[in-house]
Amino acid sequence: MTAMYGPDLTFLGIPACDLRDPDSWSDAEVVILGAPYDGGTSYRAGARFGPGAIRQACYLPHDGVRPSLALGVDGLRDLRVKDAGDVEMFSGDAHASHAALEHAVHTIAAAGKIPLVLGGDHSIALPNVTGVARAAGWGRVSIMHFDAHADTGESSFGSLIGHGQPMRRLIESGAARGDRFLQIGLRGYWPGPQTLRWMAEQRMRSYEMTEVVERGLDTCLAEASAIAVDDCDGVYLSVDIDVVDPGMAPGTGTPEPGGLTSRELLDAVRRLAYELPIVGVEVVEVAPAHDHADMTAMLGSRVVLEALSGLARQRAEKSGRAQPWDPGRPLLPTT
Amino acid sequence: MTAMYGPDLTFLGIPACDLRDPDSWSDAEVVILGAPYDGGTSYRAGARFGPGAIRQACYLPHDGVRPSLALGVDGLRDLRVKDAGDVEMFSGDAHASHAALEHAVHTIAAAGKIPLVLGGDHSIALPNVTGVARAAGWGRVSIMHFDAHADTGESSFGSLIGHGQPMRRLIESGAARGDRFLQIGLRGYWPGPQTLRWMAEQRMRSYEMTEVVERGLDTCLAEASAIAVDDCDGVYLSVDIDVVDPGMAPGTGTPEPGGLTSRELLDAVRRLAYELPIVGVEVVEVAPAHDHADMTAMLGSRVVLEALSGLARQRAEKSGRAQPWDPGRPLLPTT
Amino acid sequence: MTAMYGPDLTFLGIPACDLRDPDSWSDAEVVILGAPYDGGTSYRAGARFGPGAIRQACYLPHDGVRPSLALGVDGLRDLRVKDAGDVEMFSGDAHASHAALEHAVHTIAAAGKIPLVLGGDHSIALPNVTGVARAAGWGRVSIMHFDAHADTGESSFGSLIGHGQPMRRLIESGAARGDRFLQIGLRGYWPGPQTLRWMAEQRMRSYEMTEVVERGLDTCLAEASAIAVDDCDGVYLSVDIDVVDPGMAPGTGTPEPGGLTSRELLDAVRRLAYELPIVGVEVVEVAPAHDHADMTAMLGSRVVLEALSGLARQRAEKSGRAQPWDPGRPLLPTT
Amino acid sequence: MTAMYGPDLTFLGIPACDLRDPDSWSDAEVVILGAPYDGGTSYRAGARFGPGAIRQACYLPHDGVRPSLALGVDGLRDLRVKDAGDVEMFSGDAHASHAALEHAVHTIAAAGKIPLVLGGDHSIALPNVTGVARAAGWGRVSIMHFDAHADTGESSFGSLIGHGQPMRRLIESGAARGDRFLQIGLRGYWPGPQTLRWMAEQRMRSYEMTEVVERGLDTCLAEASAIAVDDCDGVYLSVDIDVVDPGMAPGTGTPEPGGLTSRELLDAVRRLAYELPIVGVEVVEVAPAHDHADMTAMLGSRVVLEALSGLARQRAEKSGRAQPWDPGRPLLPTT
Amino acid sequence: MTAMYGPDLTFLGIPACDLRDPDSWSDAEVVILGAPYDGGTSYRAGARFGPGAIRQACYLPHDGVRPSLALGVDGLRDLRVKDAGDVEMFSGDAHASHAALEHAVHTIAAAGKIPLVLGGDHSIALPNVTGVARAAGWGRVSIMHFDAHADTGESSFGSLIGHGQPMRRLIESGAARGDRFLQIGLRGYWPGPQTLRWMAEQRMRSYEMTEVVERGLDTCLAEASAIAVDDCDGVYLSVDIDVVDPGMAPGTGTPEPGGLTSRELLDAVRRLAYELPIVGVEVVEVAPAHDHADMTAMLGSRVVLEALSGLARQRAEKSGRAQPWDPGRPLLPTT
Amino acid sequence: MTAMYGPDLTFLGIPACDLRDPDSWSDAEVVILGAPYDGGTSYRAGARFGPGAIRQACYLPHDGVRPSLALGVDGLRDLRVKDAGDVEMFSGDAHASHAALEHAVHTIAAAGKIPLVLGGDHSIALPNVTGVARAAGWGRVSIMHFDAHADTGESSFGSLIGHGQPMRRLIESGAARGDRFLQIGLRGYWPGPQTLRWMAEQRMRSYEMTEVVERGLDTCLAEASAIAVDDCDGVYLSVDIDVVDPGMAPGTGTPEPGGLTSRELLDAVRRLAYELPIVGVEVVEVAPAHDHADMTAMLGSRVVLEALSGLARQRAEKSGRAQPWDPGRPLLPTT
Repeated sequence: MTAMYGPDLTFLGIPACDLRDPDSWSDAEVVILGAPYDGGTSYRAGARFGPGAIRQACYLPHDGVRPSLALGVDGLRDLRVKDAGDVEMFSGDAHASHAALEHAVHTIAAAGKIPLVLGGDHSIALPNVTGVARAAGWGRVSIMHFDAHADTGESSFGSLIGHGQPMRRLIESGAARGDRFLQIGLRGYWPGPQTLRWMAEQRMRSYEMTEVVERGLDTCLAEASAIAVDDCDGVYLSVDIDVVDPGMAPGTGTPEPGGLTSRELLDAVRRLAYELPIVGVEVVEVAPAHDHADMTAMLGSRVVLEALSGLARQRAEKSGRAQPWDPGRPLLPTT
Repeated sequence: MTAMYGPDLTFLGIPACDLRDPDSWSDAEVVILGAPYDGGTSYRAGARFGPGAIRQACYLPHDGVRPSLALGVDGLRDLRVKDAGDVEMFSGDAHASHAALEHAVHTIAAAGKIPLVLGGDHSIALPNVTGVARAAGWGRVSIMHFDAHADTGESSFGSLIGHGQPMRRLIESGAARGDRFLQIGLRGYWPGPQTLRWMAEQRMRSYEMTEVVERGLDTCLAEASAIAVDDCDGVYLSVDIDVVDPGMAPGTGTPEPGGLTSRELLDAVRRLAYELPIVGVEVVEVAPAHDHADMTAMLGSRVVLEALSGLARQRAEKSGRAQPWDPGRPLLPTT
Repeated sequence: MTAMYGPDLTFLGIPACDLRDPDSWSDAEVVILGAPYDGGTSYRAGARFGPGAIRQACYLPHDGVRPSLALGVDGLRDLRVKDAGDVEMFSGDAHASHAALEHAVHTIAAAGKIPLVLGGDHSIALPNVTGVARAAGWGRVSIMHFDAHADTGESSFGSLIGHGQPMRRLIESGAARGDRFLQIGLRGYWPGPQTLRWMAEQRMRSYEMTEVVERGLDTCLAEASAIAVDDCDGVYLSVDIDVVDPGMAPGTGTPEPGGLTSRELLDAVRRLAYELPIVGVEVVEVAPAHDHADMTAMLGSRVVLEALSGLARQRAEKSGRAQPWDPGRPLLPTT
Repeated sequence: MTAMYGPDLTFLGIPACDLRDPDSWSDAEVVILGAPYDGGTSYRAGARFGPGAIRQACYLPHDGVRPSLALGVDGLRDLRVKDAGDVEMFSGDAHASHAALEHAVHTIAAAGKIPLVLGGDHSIALPNVTGVARAAGWGRVSIMHFDAHADTGESSFGSLIGHGQPMRRLIESGAARGDRFLQIGLRGYWPGPQTLRWMAEQRMRSYEMTEVVERGLDTCLAEASAIAVDDCDGVYLSVDIDVVDPGMAPGTGTPEPGGLTSRELLDAVRRLAYELPIVGVEVVEVAPAHDHADMTAMLGSRVVLEALSGLARQRAEKSGRAQPWDPGRPLLPTT
Repeated sequence: MTAMYGPDLTFLGIPACDLRDPDSWSDAEVVILGAPYDGGTSYRAGARFGPGAIRQACYLPHDGVRPSLALGVDGLRDLRVKDAGDVEMFSGDAHASHAALEHAVHTIAAAGKIPLVLGGDHSIALPNVTGVARAAGWGRVSIMHFDAHADTGESSFGSLIGHGQPMRRLIESGAARGDRFLQIGLRGYWPGPQTLRWMAEQRMRSYEMTEVVERGLDTCLAEASAIAVDDCDGVYLSVDIDVVDPGMAPGTGTPEPGGLTSRELLDAVRRLAYELPIVGVEVVEVAPAHDHADMTAMLGSRVVLEALSGLARQRAEKSGRAQPWDPGRPLLPTT
Repeated sequence: MTAMYGPDLTFLGIPACDLRDPDSWSDAEVVILGAPYDGGTSYRAGARFGPGAIRQACYLPHDGVRPSLALGVDGLRDLRVKDAGDVEMFSGDAHASHAALEHAVHTIAAAGKIPLVLGGDHSIALPNVTGVARAAGWGRVSIMHFDAHADTGESSFGSLIGHGQPMRRLIESGAARGDRFLQIGLRGYWPGPQTLRWMAEQRMRSYEMTEVVERGLDTCLAEASAIAVDDCDGVYLSVDIDVVDPGMAPGTGTPEPGGLTSRELLDAVRRLAYELPIVGVEVVEVAPAHDHADMTAMLGSRVVLEALSGLARQRAEKSGRAQPWDPGRPLLPTT
């Protein structure tokens, strides 16, 4: 389980581990997995190179050290994070690929660790959440889902498991509850009324961008968080990079104009990872072939780091190692 | 009147029509026209490929169906929209090209339909608005104009009809009234005092970006809309894609930093098309050669769709088929 | 002292001058210098072409005329600005290059003019501010510093004078006071605790992006400005283009997602140049090889113009040629 | 069976047909099919957009007319060519996709027409040649294969049907004979000794680039052609665009430096299509996401046109409508 | 008559002159003119930036010095070359633009100097050759024409003076003789039989690429040169950069695969400029928006330099300052 | 001594070693070193990322296995090759950087191994050859130098050690003999007569491209090889990637049109590495920021592999493990 494409390297130089060797990761709190699969894409492929791109898109030394200025913790050091490399996923065989990924994710979750999966296209949400739910409780995990698209389609090109369908499959299977499915950033012209009806029947809560702009992102996030932690055993954070506007995140497969700014996404991820009982994370749909100057890969890298930093801060506070975080405080202490 | 460059295709697969055959479009409410002309550009050419790029920049099936999540209507189905292809416009002959376009636009407007023109450089505003005004009333149409530039120059390179002059020509001819000319998003270092003086004399109302930021875009739009509907018979919506910041819309000819975000433009167009008595629309200055990953072409596509969706919602409400729109409502009905 | 790379040209066509011939610039209020040096970069090189790119990135005629719509003055005409060309800076020899630049900057500042330096990487802040401080008063110049990075590192790659170190060197030498060092836009994962401690000991005031978002950019700028003008003889404005989000300014060496928008930076620079007693300006880290469609170079060009326009407006008001500026006023006078 | 991605269009505007409606193509001599599949790629995906890109990459009118200067015939008019659109191929399901393609190709071949397939990745050679062989004779069709890679691997990523395996599968099944498998342009560092041994055992004839340079491309082509027509019932022409040097054809998935020039490939395809009894053609591995200025898509377009033109000339001569072709003749007849 | 777009600069820093001031160029042997016009393009525009790009595409100092390694002369110093800047050509008005250019070219030619025109699209061949012929003799100038396209069309988009028509217009007017029109590098699928018939009737000699490959470029050039100098008073050299393969020269408007290599074009231009009685030169169709890393602009720059160097060597030999050139000689003299 | 920029990885996955630990590389025949330095560039910087790009530019698994189809040996397995990572070279300090590199190269050469250095700009030839000569014999090593430029300048920008000077410095110091300095591929307009005179005085042998085309590359290589092995103790192979035409190798700092094809360079390097007594190799001037689709980095990768494969074949023949190589043999043995 090493790099499927290109050189074998870990996220920003953190320690590697081997899923088949539990001793190599028994001390980890978070285990990173690459899911280099883009067989589920309905338009531009290329997300198979997402894991490799996210792992190395950084101008700082790849030394496994990243102290967050915003949070005052180091998501790679104050948290024990290891990288298990890529799951081998042949993009021409969705079934086998998804099965392999689900097994890997379940292995990590069952050991009480947080899997953090670097996609790959969004079809991997199906094995990811399934693997987590099998460990953390079937239907007991809320989903906090950032995306331009609902991904709740019935099928596309005759397939049930493309990247436009995973959320429906998860609710149908019961792995995730419809009324604990929170979607943020939807926009554009998909899906149509029939699918929206199905979504409403599941009692999903989808914050379309018009609502986000009208009511404010912070308000929407607070409301969604309250739902997410109500009668659940954990929250799974799914970030499709296309929730950000294509002008700032062009390196993706199905870009829809009118999204969040990069800043808004980073602020949101930081906050949710700091506040919620996260049990799994995925960052998907970074497709380097369509990127420019690595801007989207770097954004993906920072989404990962904000999630890890938020988690680290949450744990530091719980263990009494830090005071409650105040986002308005100056960076440098004043006397 | 088919595609001037590249393959012959309609906007996202809507039905084609032929302007010379009135039966082919007598049932349409909106008729799309391509104006593949960039002979008026003062800097980067390339907008001649705007119509082709806007027509096909979409990851969804080109099936003539686009249900708007924001508005709950389908701008391509709830409204009857047809695509009449491109007007043949040789970029080396502005006079002949403009005449051909004016004739086509007038034909559509005179039949009581809304022409929606895909540019092409902004010099086409001259024949577009002229053609509309000849049908809807000379000096009876207000102009709602999104742009980084006022386009009110006296001349450039010795020509009176480049893309920096159309707004002056329109006011000079009386086709449009200066005091019903609303400009939003101006910025930068053009034009100079002399032209500004002329603009003030015409009693134009130009919202420079500093004012937009200071007072808020929503406030400015509300104020402008009130002026636009005062003593007029219709509003023409002119969207130069360069009103958006070049960071998010690089594929254009004369990019000026410091513009709106993509989100802001889409929100504004949706709102105006929903609220105002639109009699014509143009989306201009998309120049694919300078674009990256089609982000600007996709934005152009969405500007068209937001305008159509807003129109469709307005008509649905007027005919009693829909309740008043509330942008803060959740996407999915809750019980 | 002409163009080090490419053709010999001045910023947007303003008059050239020769530093060795004082008569050629004795009438100038601002003298532009190119610093085509990128030997200090810790990651992507290429900023050596920043001066050339910023000088020519404009779609308007290169005629030395740029009337600001926002401010109603012409930063190139109402202010006397000349371009002294490039300082010859071999990127393989930091010491010699910095010495040459410091000498040039000091020459300008000592004559009572404002040097405006086009970088080049940010290591040039060391000779720039040193040159200014030698003329304007050692430790008497406040620094208003826009950047994603603090640039206060101890060393990198064994060197004390890379682009991550200049701010530390300046405080160590006493050229600039730590407690008059205002930083805006910091973010990401650098520097670590040890450097932050050093910064706090110097009593620097660094506005990290989380604070900027939480408290508002305008509030932070007002606070920083108040500190800057307290007991000082001038303010030096240092703009690292990477303070803007990489999505909007990709052409730079060490892009960190989550930054300001282009609009925010232009508004901030305009305001500060209008309000503060500026004694020097630098615009650094524009690296054209990583740019797309010149968007970052154009942004750099506009940062320069906003600074010049703000200065021009300030002087016009001081001399009674203009009324106090109101950013919310309409562009065109109404009657 | 219409366009799977993007707008519905035919190759350069030739007439469309529908495979399910035999009347629509019963008069055709060649039927073009799109195979928008890239689930078989071992590195960069993106060839799914090859069919759409090849169909529209041309600056001339899309009017179904292309008179060849080199051959004096029109490959789109002197030959009856129709375009049946895309076979729906979900890239996440190789088996279903290949089955659909094989069925379509067989349908065409069984009707005595020449299928010309636009890929898609090279894994489609398996269904393509299988479909042809089922109609033209199992093991009775020689393969003329231009490629940087032998594509004779045992498996990759656990799959037997990726784009590195099709040629082995074809020989194993008996669809194609190993000793009538002619490969031109191989180079680089794959496959290894074991696979080469297997290839030698099949008595394949592979012209590696070193041999091509040493002996001359014309000599190699003549030798290969002689083998191809010996005891066979037809020749299948398979062109992987990566046979051309990546410097001239960057838009492909697995670029290997040191290939043919564009000119050499076009000359070779023209000659072979003119000389050999062609029963099927495929042009594969054009991946637009990695292309620049459409140069690779345009090359793919011209490979198709040279093949069609060669076929047209061959038939014109056979039917007495043309004299034997002399490549050294002047374009214009002299008197 | 200065730069129409961007900064005002001369070709690689040679002295500027002003056509309206004959004293400023009376000592020149060659006068460079920019023709920033692309209103004649039938597909991609952008050649208006050709003059600016060719003038500055060089990594060496812009010092007006370029000693040719191949020829041992300096085309910018051993020949007296001046740059008269750009003719103002509004791309929306072909007639006025062409008239202005013809006047400028005639002014130069009538003074006995060689005009060297940087295009611009190829429609400028019409005013260029007309201007030269009016001075050097109507029908007395042979044309040596490198191009992928014959440019002998009757009309396009209703216009007689697009970039596909100039050669027909020149022969029709009698400015150039059909039987002294030599075309090298034609290929592809245009024009059709009717136009070819017209060309044959004019007794043009067109070397299509198949003939060039079959007979050898050197052979074809020798044959063409012999025709060119037979009963003529001078040779006009017209180089359309698209004669080179798009893989090596992507920055152009109508790329046709299968062209010359860059090396072949440079060798050909050097040889012809050295051997023939050149009376005018044009380098056209460099369109920077489609270029990558300036490779096509740099090629255009070198075509100009090879032409100038060849001329300089020819004159040096004629005046006895140099021995006959031997292309096979070592660069460095041996003892 | 690990990766200076980006992730820590070895060339295509070969074993790593540490120069400071001789045991880690005592069994190697070739040791790869990265020299991520571009402080010596006179135009575009960016070659500092050359080592990282060359190490990972390959679509095959990074498994340390690369069997050459051309030569029938594996340059990574039949030869013992290790990768010692990057020498730390701060681009702002040429002296310190060069000293560090010279020390590393000498360490390898003194141990009797072949250093293979991945640049970096060409200024590193100075420390590289110096380090080799100190071990292999001062003035006893011939230089086989592929380049568009002679790199024999006196100085540039006041520096003696930029990338245009190394060859002069080497001859001046005596490290290399002028009359054993063989240059292939020179072209363009640099250097001027004075430097050429100096080169002639040193009795250098420089094959300018005109001579290469006229006499044939094979002839020139044979002649140069004969000089190289006359009275010398080894041959150092220096490959500047810009010897290839910019159309095929755009990712470099000072591109000069009219170069070799990629194929020609690979054929030449293979042949020389197979025939000559190589004591050191460098591949320089790959600058990824200017590359497209990694084509230049991939070419650099293949130059390294051809050199290693040629060496491996030479040694295999010497030890009797292989028969003399015949480049015209078929890839597959026939019976």
